[in-house]
Amino acid sequence: MKFRLFTPGPSPVPEETLLELAKPVPYHRTPEFRQLLKEVVEDLRYVYRTKNPVVPLTSSGTGGMEAAVANCLAPGDKAICLISGRFGERWRNLCKAFRTEPIAVVVPDGQAVPPEQLAQALKQHPDARAVCCTLSETSTGVANDVAAFGPIVANTPALLLVDAISALGVIECETDEWHIDICVTGSQKALMLPPGLAFLSVSAKARERIERREAGGVFYFDLKKALAKLQEDTPYTPAHTLIRALRVSLKRIRAEGIETIWAKQSRNAAAARAGFQAMGLELFAARPSDGLTVVKVPAGIDGSALLSKLEKQYGMKLAGGQDHLKGKIIRLAHMGYLDQFDVLAALAGVELVLLEMGFPMKVGSGVAAAQQVWAQAAPARQP
Amino acid sequence: MKFRLFTPGPSPVPEETLLELAKPVPYHRTPEFRQLLKEVVEDLRYVYRTKNPVVPLTSSGTGGMEAAVANCLAPGDKAICLISGRFGERWRNLCKAFRTEPIAVVVPDGQAVPPEQLAQALKQHPDARAVCCTLSETSTGVANDVAAFGPIVANTPALLLVDAISALGVIECETDEWHIDICVTGSQKALMLPPGLAFLSVSAKARERIERREAGGVFYFDLKKALAKLQEDTPYTPAHTLIRALRVSLKRIRAEGIETIWAKQSRNAAAARAGFQAMGLELFAARPSDGLTVVKVPAGIDGSALLSKLEKQYGMKLAGGQDHLKGKIIRLAHMGYLDQFDVLAALAGVELVLLEMGFPMKVGSGVAAAQQVWAQAAPARQP
Repeated sequence: MKFRLFTPGPSPVPEETLLELAKPVPYHRTPEFRQLLKEVVEDLRYVYRTKNPVVPLTSSGTGGMEAAVANCLAPGDKAICLISGRFGERWRNLCKAFRTEPIAVVVPDGQAVPPEQLAQALKQHPDARAVCCTLSETSTGVANDVAAFGPIVANTPALLLVDAISALGVIECETDEWHIDICVTGSQKALMLPPGLAFLSVSAKARERIERREAGGVFYFDLKKALAKLQEDTPYTPAHTLIRALRVSLKRIRAEGIETIWAKQSRNAAAARAGFQAMGLELFAARPSDGLTVVKVPAGIDGSALLSKLEKQYGMKLAGGQDHLKGKIIRLAHMGYLDQFDVLAALAGVELVLLEMGFPMKVGSGVAAAQQVWAQAAPARQP
Repeated sequence: MKFRLFTPGPSPVPEETLLELAKPVPYHRTPEFRQLLKEVVEDLRYVYRTKNPVVPLTSSGTGGMEAAVANCLAPGDKAICLISGRFGERWRNLCKAFRTEPIAVVVPDGQAVPPEQLAQALKQHPDARAVCCTLSETSTGVANDVAAFGPIVANTPALLLVDAISALGVIECETDEWHIDICVTGSQKALMLPPGLAFLSVSAKARERIERREAGGVFYFDLKKALAKLQEDTPYTPAHTLIRALRVSLKRIRAEGIETIWAKQSRNAAAARAGFQAMGLELFAARPSDGLTVVKVPAGIDGSALLSKLEKQYGMKLAGGQDHLKGKIIRLAHMGYLDQFDVLAALAGVELVLLEMGFPMKVGSGVAAAQQVWAQAAPARQP
């Protein structure tokens, strides 16, 4: 049976990137590797829409978030954490671990954080040193309105730290225009690579903070050191075969064009939502991200059995809910190397399993509704 | 031209491991991946010679060292750092970054730390909470006598933290028998994998310290969390395709047998030393590691030109000295997937370049001397 990976990270890697990973291992302290790193950083800046440096780290995305907190905040500093799910919670936990004072703005699962709540929190805490938020909250499928957060934070001394791990390269993310000070992402989502690398962009405002911070409390994730080395090298041995393979995936992104990708993903997300809704399923996210679609498991259906059948009978790996959402939602990724026909396949799989489980639905309603979205966007029929 | 990688990390990766890296990306929160992780950890414990847990981290080896310091020491704690080169210095820098008080025992480049100096330091600082040392000091080619350090530290409250990054799987490392509390290694040396993963073993004594430490100051490298998860998972998305590929390299190690590997590497190292010495080169390390051989660049020879010729004319990448040793030494790795005939090739390459550069030497003296070592170890001739 053919295997199809639809989890919101890791996500599928193009064959030519996989083959790059199988090439013999080179040495990394060479002019050739420095050139390669430079090229990769340049291409990342294109995806980030930034003129600022982008730092590669050998870690999961969480390592990138830790680097942001540990380098930009000192113990006792206030940080407003906008929490719309598990990954927003991660910011709060990171702040706690580094002994800063998190001011939590929490919204119910499935909701995005209203920009007004951020404005209010900043008014109440004008001494906040950072605002931490999540662009695409992978645990609930919500996209937060970071475009609106940016100008609110820009006029304060606070830095805007954004987890764009499952967002960058999928949905619009205008790092510079939106005044994002540190924008974190990981390799295993839209960048079409296996996990192992994290990246973050660093604005001038963030860099000033980083350069001025007291030494100590950070070593492996020391951004001051990483930024100083960036022109030539990484401070420690990087996962350099992943970086070499990233070049291949990034070339694919550049060839397609980031705006074309945003539009395509937006269409695929609209099709996924239309498909699920036509089947009679309810969307979980009030403000859905275009990187993944999250739907509620309908009453009378066993969510775990649904996912298990999809995997065993059709070779499709979708994700369920995490923690308290386990069994209550299913999450379908459509980012990176997943295209419209992959989304169509996933909808067809879910439909077949739901029909088998006795869920009342018109056969083909989901795939037809999705197809409707794509047909509207397809080149017009010749007269 | 055929490329041959002889740097002491990264080192060559077997073809079957490379091909594993090119396989499609799976999801990692599954019973199958948990089983794979369990198997890999079990095989690592075999290589480590430990009954204790081995924690995988997605980072370079330095990340593993940071995890040891950040989890086992509190600010103000004294840590004796045995420094015989650049990587011993890294322990000191890590201790400083985490605001502990490093007590440095420094020996000149090329020397190993005499166990008596450790005993003396511990007598002077009976309140030391850790002893940090390097088994194979990759910057100088020295092997430290960790077997002797172990019993000295075991009778004190201090933990023995060992950087075995370029040692584990090459030279004897009896983690449990030598009373090593935390033994750190990286994926890109004898474990025959690209960089991206670090591992550390945790003794009962270290675990007690970790469990009791106050929360905070550590998140991504939180060993308490990693140890709690170890039976089932990793706290954050691991570089799981590297872990899957590691299984392949570890099976190779198990099939050969760790004691057989130690003996083989010891023989290859003896051959490399004999070869270089027969050419008239001087060893740099007074107590050489069997993972790499470091020789002084002879008077009248330009060290950088030598390395550059080796690379351009013969496709061989050896390493030079770092920092103040730049141009003064050359470093040849013989670990992991590098075998005796690879060592022979490297010796032949160095010989040819030295001859070309006018260094006086009998042609073939190096390769013949090395061959002599292997001939003595080869099966006896039939009568």
